Amino acid sequence: MDRLSQTFSALADPTRRAILARLADGNATVGELADPFDMSLPAVSRHLKVLTEAGLIERSTEAQWRRCALRGEGLRAAADWIEFYRRFWEQQFDRLEAFLIRNTPKPAKEKRRGRRSR
Amino acid sequence: MDRLSQTFSALADPTRRAILARLADGNATVGELADPFDMSLPAVSRHLKVLTEAGLIERSTEAQWRRCALRGEGLRAAADWIEFYRRFWEQQFDRLEAFLIRNTPKPAKEKRRGRRSR
Repeated sequence: MDRLSQTFSALADPTRRAILARLADGNATVGELADPFDMSLPAVSRHLKVLTEAGLIERSTEAQWRRCALRGEGLRAAADWIEFYRRFWEQQFDRLEAFLIRNTPKPAKEKRRGRRSR
Repeated sequence: MDRLSQTFSALADPTRRAILARLADGNATVGELADPFDMSLPAVSRHLKVLTEAGLIERSTEAQWRRCALRGEGLRAAADWIEFYRRFWEQQFDRLEAFLIRNTPKPAKEKRRGRRSR
């Protein structure tokens, strides 16, 4: 699988995204990561393997502890890919905004004019 | 599957990303989308189904033609999700930049000093 597909595939799971969100708060051991998920260590380890292979986390061993750290760099290509399409959702927002401006009566302006003519 | 997982899962395939890139240039029929991929119409249709279900494209029927259009809005949540992690790859870049600034000799400055003392 190409690297970008691997990244998106790793992100296509709510538990893996939650693990990344937890690591955004600081490094953690596998046990600390497993804790909030009510999940077995082997199940968490499988998710960590997917995240490691996609380059989204790094694992190191300190004494007997296996620590995990977020690897932000691993998200850059996916962010760049999506960024190219930003104009498409912003265009849609611009069209909605233009529609609302065209179709919203302007009571404030009318009031001011009214005051001036008094 | 939750919507965000569905989006990332749809993006985890190079052919589907290429279809989105083609649609970024303008709407296309299923035949036009199939053309550059040397792929059967049913195979392309399966990819289009995944993209439609993830809310990334829209399909409409004009006369006998089935037209596909990019739905940029469908990428917004994925972009927002990734955006939260931007600081992590920018931090890594900042650290590299700081390292390079600290460890790069500044020949230009040295030269100027040399001239002044003459």
